[in-house]
Amino acid sequence: MSRAFNFSAGPATLPEPVLQQAQAELLDWHGVGASIVELSHRGPEFMQVAAEAEADLRTLMAIPDDYAMLFLQGGATAQQALIALNFAAPGQTVDYLVTGHWGKTALKQVQPYVAANVAANGEPGGFRDIPARESWKLSQDAAYLHYTANETIHGVEFGEIPDVGDVPLIADFSSSIASEPLDVSKFGVIYAGAQKNLGPVGVSVVIVRRELLERAGQPRAEIFDYRAHVKGESMLNTPPTWNWYLAGLVFKWMLAEGGVAEFAQRNARKSALLYQVIDNSGGYYRNEVAAAVRSRMNVPFFLHDEALDKPFLAEAQAAGLISLKGHRALGGMRASIYNAMPEEGVQALAAFMRDFQQRHG
Amino acid sequence: MSRAFNFSAGPATLPEPVLQQAQAELLDWHGVGASIVELSHRGPEFMQVAAEAEADLRTLMAIPDDYAMLFLQGGATAQQALIALNFAAPGQTVDYLVTGHWGKTALKQVQPYVAANVAANGEPGGFRDIPARESWKLSQDAAYLHYTANETIHGVEFGEIPDVGDVPLIADFSSSIASEPLDVSKFGVIYAGAQKNLGPVGVSVVIVRRELLERAGQPRAEIFDYRAHVKGESMLNTPPTWNWYLAGLVFKWMLAEGGVAEFAQRNARKSALLYQVIDNSGGYYRNEVAAAVRSRMNVPFFLHDEALDKPFLAEAQAAGLISLKGHRALGGMRASIYNAMPEEGVQALAAFMRDFQQRHG
Repeated sequence: MSRAFNFSAGPATLPEPVLQQAQAELLDWHGVGASIVELSHRGPEFMQVAAEAEADLRTLMAIPDDYAMLFLQGGATAQQALIALNFAAPGQTVDYLVTGHWGKTALKQVQPYVAANVAANGEPGGFRDIPARESWKLSQDAAYLHYTANETIHGVEFGEIPDVGDVPLIADFSSSIASEPLDVSKFGVIYAGAQKNLGPVGVSVVIVRRELLERAGQPRAEIFDYRAHVKGESMLNTPPTWNWYLAGLVFKWMLAEGGVAEFAQRNARKSALLYQVIDNSGGYYRNEVAAAVRSRMNVPFFLHDEALDKPFLAEAQAAGLISLKGHRALGGMRASIYNAMPEEGVQALAAFMRDFQQRHG
Repeated sequence: MSRAFNFSAGPATLPEPVLQQAQAELLDWHGVGASIVELSHRGPEFMQVAAEAEADLRTLMAIPDDYAMLFLQGGATAQQALIALNFAAPGQTVDYLVTGHWGKTALKQVQPYVAANVAANGEPGGFRDIPARESWKLSQDAAYLHYTANETIHGVEFGEIPDVGDVPLIADFSSSIASEPLDVSKFGVIYAGAQKNLGPVGVSVVIVRRELLERAGQPRAEIFDYRAHVKGESMLNTPPTWNWYLAGLVFKWMLAEGGVAEFAQRNARKSALLYQVIDNSGGYYRNEVAAAVRSRMNVPFFLHDEALDKPFLAEAQAAGLISLKGHRALGGMRASIYNAMPEEGVQALAAFMRDFQQRHG
């Protein structure tokens, strides 16, 4: 078929102009006689690609100079483990807000290394809301507080940055990074797998306040040491060059489209339209997340009758709307609508949902 | 320019038919309406790609069933740290053969975790030879012995598998994996970054004898636990799908070309030709590695006068021969001639070297 509207939660849809450029130069990058994926990471060609990617992401996200930026392998999950190794002493107390599946994963990674205190846990409520600030049980002297800005599976997003005083905030922004303006200076560390809002799978971005790098952390291999990666400019070992290159193309596309302020507006319109269709369906479609914390990035929803799931997915696919099946942990449907999902795609999905309801009502 | 012969040490040249196929299907993989890089790793499309890649590499390398295979992020360097965490108790003795830069790197990664004994060290001899077997100082009860099958920078390769009795062998095969037939059953673990003989950067292959996975190892995050990765079929977190896919295309290309037996012959002819040009140059070109341990994959060489380096590189590039500059640790030149480097490329380099000597002799 021609290109479908692809609602995959990640790896996720990429901007078509980015894929077209990558396609055009896949065998010969800028006339050097080789693909960028075949060239040394230390050669002038890739060094330029890498430097532009960092500069462009700094511009896009308005990242202050006292923050280092890393492009690493391992995905967000590896960063979740490295956070404890780099920023907490052995057995030191750290605070975690658990508001969905990925918060639980983050917590699990650090439990061998630190005393992890679950300051708030949305699980008893089925992860349909974020526990109220007054209920959080924060530790004295936590090394940091970790939270998940947007929960990809449960569709729960923090509407604002948690206020926890002087404790450094460490946040997993895998599924909402660069989707709207963000005050980076409020954070100790922001990390994200790139495969949702930033582009391709296989590379993660870590943005870290430089003063945190002075912490001794825990005994660890050099390859697990953020200081060494900063010193090595993310080339301590061979980096995932093609993935980094593709992310760089996405950054340039985002800047050309108007930057995060523009994407914030598009993303607000996109998610509002889907929630409207769901809420106005008279219970035909259902999203159970508290309205104030509904995700702008991932809209999970259920049909009123599970028997309709199969025809819904089949007819959607026939209409050029793919990857709508929900995560196996929840079932139902999920529309992931990151920066690269055009408004036309969401409008097409909204129209399809209304039409499907009429036909199978 | 059109495609050059690219002698980069890694990321390295890829088979042109593989790049052409990747290019053709970059915007729409097999008619599904999306790129393979945009699809969920848990969807039927990528699951098929992943399963075929594993099956094809098993066939290529004749990997026995009692070995698990992983496709992971982090590069070989991350595996070097994980080896100690997974296969040695805290502080346990492990043996390392250090025969070049990468052996030193491997050693450095484990020193925070274990008592690393350097059983042999080629550094006093400038890494131009492998210390004789009789001189190795092996430990009693080492958890494993680690060595680097081929040293990419120093151009030193083990001609045979070290015989160390019952101690499990763990070997970094990053720059020689699948370059010739290998008896996998002699190893505890074989690991390799894929960006040399197996294809693209950003994915590593780990082949591990299943019984070793029963070792307790050391306290570690789940994401650093090979058992968890085996159980999760390399999808404990989002894997680098595009890199894995591209590696799979390389495996299919290798099988179609005749498999590792065929590549062993081509690689032997390619390296023999270059060493012949060097050795017959009357000292104009120089390779200082002992003949018995010269690498079939990486041929470092020096011109008799450093002042010729610049014109050599410039004229080579003009002749369509790129990425010949040696590693900064050694200087001089290096021709990396992995599986995907065609014999025509090496013949063109040999002819250029002879011609350059005549013109600048």
